[in-house]
Amino acid sequence: MTQQVLDQKVQQAIDQFNALDEKICHFTNILGLLGWDARTYAPKKGKPIFAKAKGTLSTETFKLSISKEMGECLDTLCQPEVFHQLDLPTQSCVRERKQDYEKSKRIPTDVYNEYVVLASNANDAWEQARENDDFSYFEPYLEKMVEMKKRFAEYFGYEKHPYDALLDEYEPGLTVEKLDPLFADLRESSIKLLNRIQQSSRKPNSKIFDQNFDVEKQKEFAQFIIEKLGYDLDAGRLDETTHPFAMGINTGDVRITTRYEQDNPRMAIFGTIHETGHALYEQGVNPDYEGRVIRRGASFGIHESQSRFLENFVGRTEEFWKFFYQDLKAHFPNELNGISLDEFYRAINAVEPSLIRVEADELTYNLHIMLRYEIEKGLIAGDIKVKDLPEVWNDKVKDYLGITPPSNRLGVLQDVHWSHGGIGYFPSYSLGNLYGAQMLNKVLSDLPDFYEHIEKGEFMKIREWLGEHVHQYGKLYTPGELIKKVTGEELDAKYLVDYLEQKYTKLYDL
Amino acid sequence: MTQQVLDQKVQQAIDQFNALDEKICHFTNILGLLGWDARTYAPKKGKPIFAKAKGTLSTETFKLSISKEMGECLDTLCQPEVFHQLDLPTQSCVRERKQDYEKSKRIPTDVYNEYVVLASNANDAWEQARENDDFSYFEPYLEKMVEMKKRFAEYFGYEKHPYDALLDEYEPGLTVEKLDPLFADLRESSIKLLNRIQQSSRKPNSKIFDQNFDVEKQKEFAQFIIEKLGYDLDAGRLDETTHPFAMGINTGDVRITTRYEQDNPRMAIFGTIHETGHALYEQGVNPDYEGRVIRRGASFGIHESQSRFLENFVGRTEEFWKFFYQDLKAHFPNELNGISLDEFYRAINAVEPSLIRVEADELTYNLHIMLRYEIEKGLIAGDIKVKDLPEVWNDKVKDYLGITPPSNRLGVLQDVHWSHGGIGYFPSYSLGNLYGAQMLNKVLSDLPDFYEHIEKGEFMKIREWLGEHVHQYGKLYTPGELIKKVTGEELDAKYLVDYLEQKYTKLYDL
Repeated sequence: MTQQVLDQKVQQAIDQFNALDEKICHFTNILGLLGWDARTYAPKKGKPIFAKAKGTLSTETFKLSISKEMGECLDTLCQPEVFHQLDLPTQSCVRERKQDYEKSKRIPTDVYNEYVVLASNANDAWEQARENDDFSYFEPYLEKMVEMKKRFAEYFGYEKHPYDALLDEYEPGLTVEKLDPLFADLRESSIKLLNRIQQSSRKPNSKIFDQNFDVEKQKEFAQFIIEKLGYDLDAGRLDETTHPFAMGINTGDVRITTRYEQDNPRMAIFGTIHETGHALYEQGVNPDYEGRVIRRGASFGIHESQSRFLENFVGRTEEFWKFFYQDLKAHFPNELNGISLDEFYRAINAVEPSLIRVEADELTYNLHIMLRYEIEKGLIAGDIKVKDLPEVWNDKVKDYLGITPPSNRLGVLQDVHWSHGGIGYFPSYSLGNLYGAQMLNKVLSDLPDFYEHIEKGEFMKIREWLGEHVHQYGKLYTPGELIKKVTGEELDAKYLVDYLEQKYTKLYDL
Repeated sequence: MTQQVLDQKVQQAIDQFNALDEKICHFTNILGLLGWDARTYAPKKGKPIFAKAKGTLSTETFKLSISKEMGECLDTLCQPEVFHQLDLPTQSCVRERKQDYEKSKRIPTDVYNEYVVLASNANDAWEQARENDDFSYFEPYLEKMVEMKKRFAEYFGYEKHPYDALLDEYEPGLTVEKLDPLFADLRESSIKLLNRIQQSSRKPNSKIFDQNFDVEKQKEFAQFIIEKLGYDLDAGRLDETTHPFAMGINTGDVRITTRYEQDNPRMAIFGTIHETGHALYEQGVNPDYEGRVIRRGASFGIHESQSRFLENFVGRTEEFWKFFYQDLKAHFPNELNGISLDEFYRAINAVEPSLIRVEADELTYNLHIMLRYEIEKGLIAGDIKVKDLPEVWNDKVKDYLGITPPSNRLGVLQDVHWSHGGIGYFPSYSLGNLYGAQMLNKVLSDLPDFYEHIEKGEFMKIREWLGEHVHQYGKLYTPGELIKKVTGEELDAKYLVDYLEQKYTKLYDL
């Protein structure tokens, strides 16, 4: 073929690929909205009926992603001499679709259908088990799920550890070999730090939150904070759900939800800031990527880095509350009467080993994640049996946190993830903290007056930094590429370790 | 072929048809939800981006409805010897899909695309024209739209009047030949009645509504009424929009919206009752029809009959307010202080020629519709030129209502319908009144204590009657078949004429 004919063929494949990519993105965006609706405003009688409609669109979307047409486009565009001619955004889109195509194609249709049914049944069983505090309801389903995930790992393929294949689903490129030392460093230092904190005579007064904080006032305050943080309410909205989440439908429509608890205003305050972190990411992706697969966040871990950054590295600082505390007091003059800024600041940063992951403090949170990671690895490697899980769980909690769950409900049954098949997901949460701390270190060198900005309630510069270095790129880079581009280094646990060390040394006079 | 082979082939076609029908229904339901979201909670920056995703799903749905597969199924199932073997629901689904297929197929793709673009541009132009009170912005687009609709009429085909082809889009089977005498009877009697009313010394005191009615209180009252009326809030929800609507996503999810005006509580009260009428219809369709094209209302006219029935034949009766007025007064003790039930009842039924259709009373409303019908017929027949429309409009308003619009904004530019290409839609509104009155006559003979039920605030029996005779069937019957099945007769204007005559004779002491 002449160069001209070749070019024409390539251009055709590019156009066809982009059209297909856009169609899948459009359907995915719609599915996102349907998910938002189901969790916010959908009336209960309609949900099971509508789930079928959603299933139809979901199947259609999946079919497109593994269609013959997609395969042909990818065949053409992945030829090295063609691929290197593509611009970077197109290369990244091809990379993403290729991964998706290869993985999905490897799972036989009947196995996949079996998996979908299992996930649905396992979720029902988990709910029952949790309600009745009886692991035996869930056990047979979880056993099947673990077997299924082992099969998936074999289908996907891996070099060293079968769990690598599952990790890769959430954090492309991550392996046990890379993650083990990161978590080992973090674990060791966290447990030491926790011990020192527990021996400190400083005892923050968390009791200040055990009062009635009017929910309408909490709503007003949450609204005030997110606007100050730069969340664009013309490109999003804040609603209320039991399980808060952020949903990026497109760059002009990134919705967040939060939960208001009358006797615990921390839930809404930090939950809202957390989701705002996710939302700023999605609102900040290059709008030229709209309708392309790279429009979303780089990975679950990178996404979590943005929410944790805002929640912890901004929202739990003394400077943040130097600015916001007077407003919070104005909303709750009686409840916070006589509580100094210092007392408040220490209270929101109190460290205490607890049983429930989602209620854990900034330090012990990672221990919750690491014990789950160890268990998941063991389950997939076959070293841990599902039937032994309650015991294994409780032993690990004792080992990591020094406490013992009085029930499975407050132990192994607390998280929904495994019932949905989300084995490999948990590490993302701590990866977010690791990525975030490493980015914070870079931000502090680029913006030496980082904390002065926060103290003045000026978040523009921080948002701009995150926008320029992280948000705008979406999935243009892999998470590994991105952290290196942003910070000049591979992911390293020392930044989070140092951050935690410094923060709590000061807070607890260690 | 043996009978067995034939049966097998038919069964295959039925299965394939049902699967395709279900897929289209699922996509249509999703499109319904997207429409609801765009009109309620979608943030403004996301809308233009999301419109593309919606467009993709819309196109996909359209393609399915005219697909080769659909054509083949219909070919098999429409053979008379096959069709008569089908059960009634399947026959009705085949009938509906066949009509849709035939019509859509007849419009060349490029013409259809041209139409979609024109509708979008014409709508923008209409908005501009309305804003600037300048018909000339809209004129060239409307001219093109009328030409386009004439072409559509030729594509669709018709026996006598080209407008028949457009009417059929909204009210299958209706023709100018059938509609003209119905409207003639209604027009003549309405104008006579209006004249008598205008000469009456009875002057209802509509001024009672010119006060500030707290919107939160209005919301409470609206919620109270719809629950009493039997709207299932576990299968729906009430939100707020500028233009109220009902959206039936499925039988378990029928959402309504309303508008609250501080200085006009009638808007929310009667608007909400109206939309509840639509919603009870969709909530009441046989749930076995879920996922089939017959799950929706029989026609626009029949749908409107259900909303008008509740709004006017129930909601504007003296008995209704005998029950609800004390509750309304409890919500607005100051505003309604000293206003007797009789005064209130007369005020909500005040008849006065006015310029805006959506604000018209029960009697003059039909005159607004009929003048639009006359104009649409004239435009499609070529007897009326678009450029003459403002003048023609004002002449007709003078002729029908005795008043003259001071501007095109309050005249020919007031309705959105034509800009969207909805020529042929307007008659549905009055058809709703005609169908409704004829049904009312039947209800009164089946339920002699109809008004006693209303007076007691017991709507169950009325809802059951409507459910049994109308709602459950969805699109199982054509509108013509349905009205005959329900009332034993073809549609006849005399029932609405008599109803209006009786109602206003009493109200105005004529």
